[in-house]
Amino acid sequence: MDVRAAVAHQAGQPLTIEKLTLDGPRTGEVLVEIKATGICHTDAYTLSGKDPEGLFPAVLGHEGAGVVVEVGADVKSLRPGDHVIPLYVPECRACEYCLSGKTNLCQSIRSTQGRGLMPDGTSRFRLNNKPIYHYMGTSTFANYTVVPEISLAKIREDAPFDKVCYVGCGVTTGIGAVINTAKVEPGANVIVFGLGGIGLNVIQGCRLVGADMIVGVDINPGKKALAEKFGMTHFVNPQEIGEELVPYLVELTKGGADYSFECIGNVQVMRQALECCHKGWGESIIIGVAASGQEISTRPFQLVTGRVWKGTAFGGAKGRTDVPKIVDWYMDGKINIDDLITHTFSLEDINEAFDVMHAGKSIRSVVTFD
Amino acid sequence: MDVRAAVAHQAGQPLTIEKLTLDGPRTGEVLVEIKATGICHTDAYTLSGKDPEGLFPAVLGHEGAGVVVEVGADVKSLRPGDHVIPLYVPECRACEYCLSGKTNLCQSIRSTQGRGLMPDGTSRFRLNNKPIYHYMGTSTFANYTVVPEISLAKIREDAPFDKVCYVGCGVTTGIGAVINTAKVEPGANVIVFGLGGIGLNVIQGCRLVGADMIVGVDINPGKKALAEKFGMTHFVNPQEIGEELVPYLVELTKGGADYSFECIGNVQVMRQALECCHKGWGESIIIGVAASGQEISTRPFQLVTGRVWKGTAFGGAKGRTDVPKIVDWYMDGKINIDDLITHTFSLEDINEAFDVMHAGKSIRSVVTFD
Repeated sequence: MDVRAAVAHQAGQPLTIEKLTLDGPRTGEVLVEIKATGICHTDAYTLSGKDPEGLFPAVLGHEGAGVVVEVGADVKSLRPGDHVIPLYVPECRACEYCLSGKTNLCQSIRSTQGRGLMPDGTSRFRLNNKPIYHYMGTSTFANYTVVPEISLAKIREDAPFDKVCYVGCGVTTGIGAVINTAKVEPGANVIVFGLGGIGLNVIQGCRLVGADMIVGVDINPGKKALAEKFGMTHFVNPQEIGEELVPYLVELTKGGADYSFECIGNVQVMRQALECCHKGWGESIIIGVAASGQEISTRPFQLVTGRVWKGTAFGGAKGRTDVPKIVDWYMDGKINIDDLITHTFSLEDINEAFDVMHAGKSIRSVVTFD
Repeated sequence: MDVRAAVAHQAGQPLTIEKLTLDGPRTGEVLVEIKATGICHTDAYTLSGKDPEGLFPAVLGHEGAGVVVEVGADVKSLRPGDHVIPLYVPECRACEYCLSGKTNLCQSIRSTQGRGLMPDGTSRFRLNNKPIYHYMGTSTFANYTVVPEISLAKIREDAPFDKVCYVGCGVTTGIGAVINTAKVEPGANVIVFGLGGIGLNVIQGCRLVGADMIVGVDINPGKKALAEKFGMTHFVNPQEIGEELVPYLVELTKGGADYSFECIGNVQVMRQALECCHKGWGESIIIGVAASGQEISTRPFQLVTGRVWKGTAFGGAKGRTDVPKIVDWYMDGKINIDDLITHTFSLEDINEAFDVMHAGKSIRSVVTFD
């Protein structure tokens, strides 16, 4: 079938809207009509050429929502008409990782996904009979895409696509880091570094689980009002406090954070996030993705005296199990997504979505398909 | 009263056996007759002058066992005749740290202990009427010492002092790191870096909790036989494998360690210990104490993909609660201490104990008092 897609032909170039040929779903695969997709920094990172694993030409996009159109052989858990969110971290429920009970990092299709291919080692997208790579197993910058069954979370049918598409990445990453990775408990004091989309979702996750003090740290004072709306109780601008940040935060939280979250991708901030944690038990969670080759450092004394350094990917969420719950929380009014979707574009204007993101004007832009 | 003690008069000099005056126990304090004390690298570190918090002149020693002789006012949990192990990490059961349920790092007397003093800010030891500092709240290199009540674990009376004194530091540190900090579960694969006293205790802790593969890593092949006796299942000498250590260990453990332990104090080894952990869930525990000012580093990707970096002090053990249990385990034959006590000296020969330690000839030397 013919599909409309934004194609990344080469690094550093804008996306091009093309008519592609999409083959139907094979065994274990599902054809999904994408109704909406978010634009994420990870898409921009790959498009920039800095992602050492980036492949071109490809259909980017990993934060979508849509409807099942057709299922391939052996697909048991989904049928046409089901509403779904594609998952860049699959959940096969059969591999060593899924069965460990300790991680969400399902490895069942990792090697093909990393090579921009479906699990059988081929692509479904073609342009002028040449294959176009998939991206993160999702390729949501197209009005139709083919996704493995294990990479689709089935969600309720009354959830608006142009909002819950964000659950496919940022919302789940932030809230999941709080719930699954840190396991923040009621009454905890937390510090959140970086008040972009991820940071705001960490903040509302902390509010959801009943944290006491929710400190937001950002050098942009313009972030304060929205962060407060999401549950931030204290705002700290490192450029305004007139002293060293870490001791300031330790004092503010009366001994340090029970949990801290780095939502930027800056290795110096990662160190501050660890060192502002409470002696004896404070845990710091790295969410942000640092530039290739950069390293984090600290004195081992920080760990020997009880701090814990962790990271998280997709918020530690098992997508097929957890994403539908988060959609329910949104529909029940327990979490706020609407205020995070600041811009909406048509597919034809997708490059504008990247522009407003790079300009720092958006929290999240969503592309809707007619 | 007069006591015999080995006094550290100044950094880098041998200890001197002196007759000191020891004042009786004040409120909340206990006079203990020390029957035996281990000699630990931490004593040597302070004696060397490299410990930035080291104070002189002092009575060192923190790994003792003895009998209560007299109790000061308000001491409720101990009485004369009780057998005890002094604790350099107290357990007051009242401070924020003790009550957190998350850490063993009781802070109730930290500031005075760090200044070589009893909780009232004075010393009980005198030489020619000049005060001699206490050390780690214990000062077990004396045949009598005064210790805060909250720094004494009451143990069974049939336990031999010259063996269970080692529970006061090394045994608890190693076994506790397995049980309290890592919480190793049956069937886990573990890697232990450094097969000295701490490493051997980590190994027997892993055996105690039912670990499957217990890999020991040491550049000294002479450590192999004893480590196997303690439960090591695989020995790896980094100088003999002819390839990079981390990928070798990942392959050996079929994906990486569920838990790794650094028992040396080498920051490069700490990095290897983290990076040989299993993707998704492997946890690395730093036990060794690095030289002042040194730092650990890694790529944040190691944490984002699920590895966890932790440390431990005194094995995460709450001394008054946990030390008596570990003594029971020794008496019940569940753990081996006898084979770790390789040398015994009288107080007069205590400097020889340091010599054999520095020469790598001993696992643990114990000084017994007549």
